[in-house]
Amino acid sequence: MLSKNKIKHYRTFHAKKTREAEAKFIVEGTKMVEELLATPLKIDTLVATDEWLSSRHCGRLLSEVEVLSATEAEIQAISTLQNPQQVWALVEKPGNEIQFSSRGLILALDGIQDPGNMGTILRIADWFGVSQVLCSPDCVEIYNPKVVQASMGAIFRVPVLHGNLQDFFAACTHSDIFAADLQGENVYTAILPADSILVMGNEGNGLSAEIKKCIQHKLHIPTFKQGGEHSESLNVAVAAAILCSEFRRVNLVV
Amino acid sequence: MLSKNKIKHYRTFHAKKTREAEAKFIVEGTKMVEELLATPLKIDTLVATDEWLSSRHCGRLLSEVEVLSATEAEIQAISTLQNPQQVWALVEKPGNEIQFSSRGLILALDGIQDPGNMGTILRIADWFGVSQVLCSPDCVEIYNPKVVQASMGAIFRVPVLHGNLQDFFAACTHSDIFAADLQGENVYTAILPADSILVMGNEGNGLSAEIKKCIQHKLHIPTFKQGGEHSESLNVAVAAAILCSEFRRVNLVV
Repeated sequence: MLSKNKIKHYRTFHAKKTREAEAKFIVEGTKMVEELLATPLKIDTLVATDEWLSSRHCGRLLSEVEVLSATEAEIQAISTLQNPQQVWALVEKPGNEIQFSSRGLILALDGIQDPGNMGTILRIADWFGVSQVLCSPDCVEIYNPKVVQASMGAIFRVPVLHGNLQDFFAACTHSDIFAADLQGENVYTAILPADSILVMGNEGNGLSAEIKKCIQHKLHIPTFKQGGEHSESLNVAVAAAILCSEFRRVNLVV
Repeated sequence: MLSKNKIKHYRTFHAKKTREAEAKFIVEGTKMVEELLATPLKIDTLVATDEWLSSRHCGRLLSEVEVLSATEAEIQAISTLQNPQQVWALVEKPGNEIQFSSRGLILALDGIQDPGNMGTILRIADWFGVSQVLCSPDCVEIYNPKVVQASMGAIFRVPVLHGNLQDFFAACTHSDIFAADLQGENVYTAILPADSILVMGNEGNGLSAEIKKCIQHKLHIPTFKQGGEHSESLNVAVAAAILCSEFRRVNLVV
């Protein structure tokens, strides 16, 4: 059973402030927690129903973890999700051990704000083996519960670095820097080197002025609407997916 | 000013039941309403702030439309969105005048449930000039406000038909029927005819058993993660985007 105090305490992690101060974040649901258990991430607390605890053959021993049994209603009280879950975990954020690497396809995010888009982009990055994701300081926090859930576990696998994008670019002198642009070159026929940085901008405003100056090549995803009106743009995660797909297609590694 | 009764009445359109009984749906926000005004769709009621009404040069005369002035707080009370909007419209659903066409790239949706995914898929269909979108009866309602908003106006432009997918397939005998499948052929090297039906399945369960039997070709989007774990799948809208992009790339119409 969860005490009222514990419920209150765990709910504080719904707020970014607490997640940042305590360096912990929430992971929920069987699928996500099973992915979590396959990682070396340190779990602070795991709250689950008796049914979940008895039916699981966990991927690793939970001996060092505080495991609390709770009812579904109690889990609902500490959940960030609408649908009832069987399991909830409070997890320590990984340290800063990720080394910046300038090789391969790098995705740079300039002010991505929507948690669903951020999670979906991490999932795309994971699928296409993006070597790392660089986030500008004004991106949505990747430990936002909506990002974590939308990433479908990719957050545990994709190397994410935070900082000034120009500083990263300065350390990647041999990489070409690309961005999507309606006036850009047709992505289907453009030259797309294996060592490239693909920059995706904010949902409403696109790239910031400073980042625009750094772009060396603009790419356009052709629209095939014959005549008449069509959508002005694609969703940023969808555009990222198509561009990553093209970078991978033309650099097929067997 | 909106009366309490009007507010109560307009709020009933948040529910699918009312939208179906009255054959009307909600469109909100400046961008979406401007797109709406560029269509021939019949607007039942337009509710806007004085500021919005005085600053707009509407794309068509609003003489046949009931236009109501309201405060931002009143619009918030009838809104389905979290952020305050300046304009809200109640719109008549288009009739069933869409003629089924068996030509070009057709997208068939088998039980797409998430409104965000549905809206994003409509936006993708619009971008890539998909000739029509076929929705199985268990798809989320396309006039769900979240679908409308996520479509970014594509809902006004993409021909959507509802019905039994097998019946549509039976009327498309010259089209090849494709679906995404982890065991499928590499989409980058597969033959992708211009007249094709691409079927996308439910987010959690994939294709239904009856539809699976109709699939003639399975396509796989290669994952490029070198070793180790990676995401099991891509989001359904992301996968649809990459597949549509490939169908268009290999059938480039100049």
